Amino acid sequence: MNDVISFSRGAPSLDIIDVEGLKQATAAALDEDPARTTTYGTSVGYVPLREWIAAKHDVAPENVVVTNGSMQADAFLFDQLVSPDSPVVVERPTYDRTLLGLRNRQGQLHPIGVESDGINVDELEQRLKDGLRPVMAHIIPNFQNPAGVTLTEEKRTRLLALAEEYDFTIFEDDPYLDIRFRGQQLPTLLSQDTNGRVVYASSFSKTVCPGLRTGYLIGPADLIAKVAKAATNTYIAPNQYAESTIYQFAKSGALERSIATVKEALEARVDQLAASLRAHLPNASFVVPDGGYFLWVDLGEGVDCAKVQAAALDEGVQVVKGTDFVVDGGESCLRLAYSAVAVDQIDEGVRRLAKAVEATR
Amino acid sequence: MNDVISFSRGAPSLDIIDVEGLKQATAAALDEDPARTTTYGTSVGYVPLREWIAAKHDVAPENVVVTNGSMQADAFLFDQLVSPDSPVVVERPTYDRTLLGLRNRQGQLHPIGVESDGINVDELEQRLKDGLRPVMAHIIPNFQNPAGVTLTEEKRTRLLALAEEYDFTIFEDDPYLDIRFRGQQLPTLLSQDTNGRVVYASSFSKTVCPGLRTGYLIGPADLIAKVAKAATNTYIAPNQYAESTIYQFAKSGALERSIATVKEALEARVDQLAASLRAHLPNASFVVPDGGYFLWVDLGEGVDCAKVQAAALDEGVQVVKGTDFVVDGGESCLRLAYSAVAVDQIDEGVRRLAKAVEATR
Repeated sequence: MNDVISFSRGAPSLDIIDVEGLKQATAAALDEDPARTTTYGTSVGYVPLREWIAAKHDVAPENVVVTNGSMQADAFLFDQLVSPDSPVVVERPTYDRTLLGLRNRQGQLHPIGVESDGINVDELEQRLKDGLRPVMAHIIPNFQNPAGVTLTEEKRTRLLALAEEYDFTIFEDDPYLDIRFRGQQLPTLLSQDTNGRVVYASSFSKTVCPGLRTGYLIGPADLIAKVAKAATNTYIAPNQYAESTIYQFAKSGALERSIATVKEALEARVDQLAASLRAHLPNASFVVPDGGYFLWVDLGEGVDCAKVQAAALDEGVQVVKGTDFVVDGGESCLRLAYSAVAVDQIDEGVRRLAKAVEATR
Repeated sequence: MNDVISFSRGAPSLDIIDVEGLKQATAAALDEDPARTTTYGTSVGYVPLREWIAAKHDVAPENVVVTNGSMQADAFLFDQLVSPDSPVVVERPTYDRTLLGLRNRQGQLHPIGVESDGINVDELEQRLKDGLRPVMAHIIPNFQNPAGVTLTEEKRTRLLALAEEYDFTIFEDDPYLDIRFRGQQLPTLLSQDTNGRVVYASSFSKTVCPGLRTGYLIGPADLIAKVAKAATNTYIAPNQYAESTIYQFAKSGALERSIATVKEALEARVDQLAASLRAHLPNASFVVPDGGYFLWVDLGEGVDCAKVQAAALDEGVQVVKGTDFVVDGGESCLRLAYSAVAVDQIDEGVRRLAKAVEATR
């Protein structure tokens, strides 16, 4: 058999990482700021990168803490906000690791459906009217993982109003913001927030590379100070060497070029994926994403995606079954990550998948 | 006033960090293994570095997990072993951040005195005979932080026997192992352990640099697997970019040269510090360390080191009061970190300290 084609992991392929630019960025970091690049630093992160992030999002540095990847940021935030039995709104489907992090803290999960234009705000509003009082709502606004959909501007406004009315925090989990390859960028919830309702997380994993494990959290200064204190007690400081490298990568213009490279590749991959799905799995329904890494496909009633996932592996293609991304349901769905599959491999991957689906009927 | 002289933070000065070697190591990492250097990896760490560490300590890779600094390793370990009210043996004095980490998990702390040859094993044995049943004993065997003393080989053997008899884990916290500048290297507790009693932690902060935030934990494979799972759930993977850099730094011989540089500088600094203390604070008692970063000085009964610390700051010298390193006591003691103070600054620093002591009498 040919090599396995993997639509399973949300990671970039090496050809869209600027390895040479990284080498230069680390050299520049060590030339220009050897002391802060090599020493402990403090838990808020490498100071110039923190300032760069603050400027990008138009907030003060005091509102920013840079962390060892954005999942670590999630963990610190959940430790602050989620106690056993705290009601938490999650999207259905949503990122499996977020569900796990919330479950590990014994949060009480309230899934709200995701539509082709983002979370169903009517459903959420009804639940709130019926008495639900969440401490937090976890929202992936752009090119949602796994659904691939984007929250409209109107829904963003309504969500903020609900957070205000019912007194909860919106956790805007936005790692894909900068890799929109089609359509207009929408304002972040953070940028529309005037009342400290939003805590925002993002990452450099999709724009620079995941190996640098650098993410960040933006929020009210008092909350960020608490997170920074917890971070001090956990690891003293995040990786200054990596953060100084990212700062130089951004400053030199390599970041902008890297984002352009990533977007161009992702767009070509998703277009091929959509075309191949239409050709080989004509009954599948899906929303073609405008950015990000993931396409969510519903193979229709009666298809058991746990079986499909196993059969697909026999055919030499890896996919993730939909049930991993929901508290319940998702049996007929799959998540396809196109971030790591070269364009010329995608059609073959979908052919294999179609064979697997056929085999499980 | 002249610039402040800081004996407070256990960090190396920039002149003993091989900045050029780091630049070359990152370049080599990106040239030789660009994929694994830039991608997520898994929570056990960058595979070649994990293997390098396993070989160094003569264990299997399955016994090693590489983490974002060794304090993060401590945190993962404590999460596994320490529940509210778990009895834990700590050294008196000991590293303040360890005390904090254990207190945050509501461990029940049992301090055992540290003598000039390490923890008082007689005292520990008596406490065990009297009924103490710790889940863990935290031991810094080499050039202890803050006491600067080293546990003898005979005491190491006795400690292991007690762990066996009374069924507890020894957490051997050994970041200074490789920076012994005098005397014979002693066998680690880990290397003498035949029964899975020892969990060992170390770090590259003292031998390469702290900014790379890379440490590791060695222990029984089942425990390491649990830590790795917790690490996956916390941050997916530690920093592959940093770990790949360290691997190349080690492979090229730069690590060996860096350790030689560090040891030479530390020895000169500690010799000057001891001479200056004898000259300017003749009543002070201390053990001159054979390695590491710290010298612990007892200024004698009646001296209040909280006052001395404040007065010292007025004189332009930073020190840390002994009370930070003990559950109770330590009032007449200070910790002096000589790792970041150039030899030609040390005498002036001690002169200022002596003035401060005088001012508080």
